[in-house]
Amino acid sequence: MMAVTARAVVFLCLCLSVCQIRGFQIPLKMNKTIQNLLQHYKIPPKERFNGKPVFNREPLTGKIEAKMVFMGGVLDTYEKLISHMLKQLPTPSPQEAGTHPASAVTPAAGGDAEAGEGGDIRAELSYILKTVQDLKQKGYREQEKLLRGLQALKHIQMDNFVIQSKALWELPWLYEEASTLTENIRMERRRRRRQARRAKTHLRV
Amino acid sequence: MMAVTARAVVFLCLCLSVCQIRGFQIPLKMNKTIQNLLQHYKIPPKERFNGKPVFNREPLTGKIEAKMVFMGGVLDTYEKLISHMLKQLPTPSPQEAGTHPASAVTPAAGGDAEAGEGGDIRAELSYILKTVQDLKQKGYREQEKLLRGLQALKHIQMDNFVIQSKALWELPWLYEEASTLTENIRMERRRRRRQARRAKTHLRV
Repeated sequence: MMAVTARAVVFLCLCLSVCQIRGFQIPLKMNKTIQNLLQHYKIPPKERFNGKPVFNREPLTGKIEAKMVFMGGVLDTYEKLISHMLKQLPTPSPQEAGTHPASAVTPAAGGDAEAGEGGDIRAELSYILKTVQDLKQKGYREQEKLLRGLQALKHIQMDNFVIQSKALWELPWLYEEASTLTENIRMERRRRRRQARRAKTHLRV
Repeated sequence: MMAVTARAVVFLCLCLSVCQIRGFQIPLKMNKTIQNLLQHYKIPPKERFNGKPVFNREPLTGKIEAKMVFMGGVLDTYEKLISHMLKQLPTPSPQEAGTHPASAVTPAAGGDAEAGEGGDIRAELSYILKTVQDLKQKGYREQEKLLRGLQALKHIQMDNFVIQSKALWELPWLYEEASTLTENIRMERRRRRRQARRAKTHLRV
């Protein structure tokens, strides 16, 4: 009986570690922490299931590279959102804050947190923030660079005469580059299709 | 002599059309229009060549898919910028405006355009706007969808308690998906490398 239980435990551990290594399932601790946090960030089911998710899933139906870029943006948004939620928590009491006067945070700007449970929630949010940042750091560095580039485009001063002139001046090169890229991607797709066909024929032979 | 000239003209036409079809060179008319516009949008060379281009070229050094997304953003920005420049042009005179009272535009908010040349510049800017839109439409539709998705992320209300709660609830699924994607891309790269190696070995055999 003992042997059976032990074997079951070993098997379960193995399953869990395999799942975690392959990245198909979120860590148990993360799942539990989110469930705890949802006890604090409680909303009526009618609001939760109103058919309007915060994150649109449509961009996740495209090609893998596009999905990766969008996911980079989603992780970025979570990082900002959770940092914002941390700032909104009530100031820790003097005992909690310890001897660091600099660690005092802005008073609660919203939420219905009680001062007592603030510490727990802070620790839980900080843990979630760290797991999100770790994944971003580990798997989404290239996307991060691209997202920064796209963000910079939003800050171009369209009202500025000098900017308008410089942008016109830069257009021929950029237009050429943009046309060449569409041509390259068409050729690359054709090449890949040919390669795949060739590999298939070889396998059949 | 006539024959030589005719042959030269035919050869030149052929070269130009090949270049245009392959998309490696911008249309001559576009180039000329931009040169004309730069006569109007004139700035001192010291300002033009101050080492700070409007569009950062760094994101164009990455992978082709990332370049395409960035270029989609650049074309998008040009579309907005040129539309803005069109709005800034002086109101067309009554003869130019014709019988459409609705076609009156906001008075010039900047630039040093004279009312007389406003019509030419309007036509030239409109032409450039159209070529940019055509390229976007023809080669950057997928990127457009992704850019819309990324833009929507910027409008998520981080202050809203309901949004915070819903986002926490959505995190497990999105985190799992994001982890799986990094795993898939790693496997895909390995597969492609294997396929390329196999194709090479076959060629040698």
